Amino acid sequence: MLIVKVIKPLVSTNRIPDFEHKHLQVVQDGSSKKVAVDAVGAKPGDWVICVGSSAAREAAGSKSYPSDLTIVGIIDHWEPDPPKSSSSASAAPAAAAPSTPPVKS
Amino acid sequence: MLIVKVIKPLVSTNRIPDFEHKHLQVVQDGSSKKVAVDAVGAKPGDWVICVGSSAAREAAGSKSYPSDLTIVGIIDHWEPDPPKSSSSASAAPAAAAPSTPPVKS
Amino acid sequence: MLIVKVIKPLVSTNRIPDFEHKHLQVVQDGSSKKVAVDAVGAKPGDWVICVGSSAAREAAGSKSYPSDLTIVGIIDHWEPDPPKSSSSASAAPAAAAPSTPPVKS
Amino acid sequence: MLIVKVIKPLVSTNRIPDFEHKHLQVVQDGSSKKVAVDAVGAKPGDWVICVGSSAAREAAGSKSYPSDLTIVGIIDHWEPDPPKSSSSASAAPAAAAPSTPPVKS
Amino acid sequence: MLIVKVIKPLVSTNRIPDFEHKHLQVVQDGSSKKVAVDAVGAKPGDWVICVGSSAAREAAGSKSYPSDLTIVGIIDHWEPDPPKSSSSASAAPAAAAPSTPPVKS
Repeated sequence: MLIVKVIKPLVSTNRIPDFEHKHLQVVQDGSSKKVAVDAVGAKPGDWVICVGSSAAREAAGSKSYPSDLTIVGIIDHWEPDPPKSSSSASAAPAAAAPSTPPVKS
Repeated sequence: MLIVKVIKPLVSTNRIPDFEHKHLQVVQDGSSKKVAVDAVGAKPGDWVICVGSSAAREAAGSKSYPSDLTIVGIIDHWEPDPPKSSSSASAAPAAAAPSTPPVKS
Repeated sequence: MLIVKVIKPLVSTNRIPDFEHKHLQVVQDGSSKKVAVDAVGAKPGDWVICVGSSAAREAAGSKSYPSDLTIVGIIDHWEPDPPKSSSSASAAPAAAAPSTPPVKS
Repeated sequence: MLIVKVIKPLVSTNRIPDFEHKHLQVVQDGSSKKVAVDAVGAKPGDWVICVGSSAAREAAGSKSYPSDLTIVGIIDHWEPDPPKSSSSASAAPAAAAPSTPPVKS
Repeated sequence: MLIVKVIKPLVSTNRIPDFEHKHLQVVQDGSSKKVAVDAVGAKPGDWVICVGSSAAREAAGSKSYPSDLTIVGIIDHWEPDPPKSSSSASAAPAAAAPSTPPVKS
């Protein structure tokens, strides 16, 4: 199962009838956004568990529900990993102070 | 479910009979293009929800339909993330002000 | 479904009997090579549609066929995206030709 | 199946009833964390085998259990690959043999 | 299906009974290692075809076998792509000769 953060509800008026009136949530999975069917009543900002694959169908209520990602639990406490800085500031070599020697006369 | 953008219809004359006459759409998923069966009548430029895995079959109309990616809804409003610049201009270290030493005479 | 290019047939003498005598094709999916069961009679160089997940089984002929990637259609016309050059030539700062016009006296 | 390391148990009070009281474990899969249903009684620090896809359901106890990742075995001995350093120490240009200039007297 | 190389057998004494006594092999898939159920009797060093998704279950012997990756064939001849060098040697800037000034006396 994935550990993702709920961003906001998704509105899609024109959709297949099989989706019924279940809530859809936009979730942040690493660097990409996905849509999940909400089976627990999550709120924006919650860290949640999402189940995918064929298990997402039954988790959404019935074997014929067309979901491939369903929110199945809200995590009590979650501390996300700090974001990786691809190029950290310390990696940038400080322009070495030119060692021009003082010139005396 | 994935959030993707519809690019254009896909024409494939030589295909298996199980595909019937359903519309196929080329969709942009991040940096790669995929093909989805269209169950809602999307148009090029629409941002849509695509369901994958085994749920894509029933979403396309029947449990035996051979789809692994089906467009199941058109998103009312969607603001995509701005593209990431892998190497931003600001990362280029400005040529440090040359610390020309004081010259004594 | 994936959009991939057929590279060449794959020969595997020692394989499970469930594969029967169906043709296997090596296909190029982005930067990686995969193997797909051919249900349409594709030729090397063809751009084809491949279905994965559980739908690949029925697309290969029967629900018990052990495929997770099946070629289900040949694309009539396909123009692949140009390959991305990670460091394009234009990124190399050309020594700007000083456009100082010749000065005549 | 994936080879992952168990990090710690996951607590989720508000979750769907189908999860019953089975243990959930946070596991490290490469650079990302996932949640797996524990079917063998693993402990933090154990290297384990996780099965995904539809097989994760039956591996968790029944065909209707909503898991897409289940711990199915503890590996007796596992030596993980050393982490790749994107810029290894050896890439740092060795300080060229100092061209100590001849000293005249 | 994936094209992977067999590394070595995997030993897991504590595992779910559903795995029975089938052989498990560690395989190399690109830059990551995975575990596959061996249905053909492969040896370390063999290049093999692995089937995933729900098809991996039946390929392993029965519909209820909990596999999501099963070795289904040994490739007769396979020439892997040459590895990409992400940072070529020529990219390492030669350490500039230290500009130790000549010392006169």
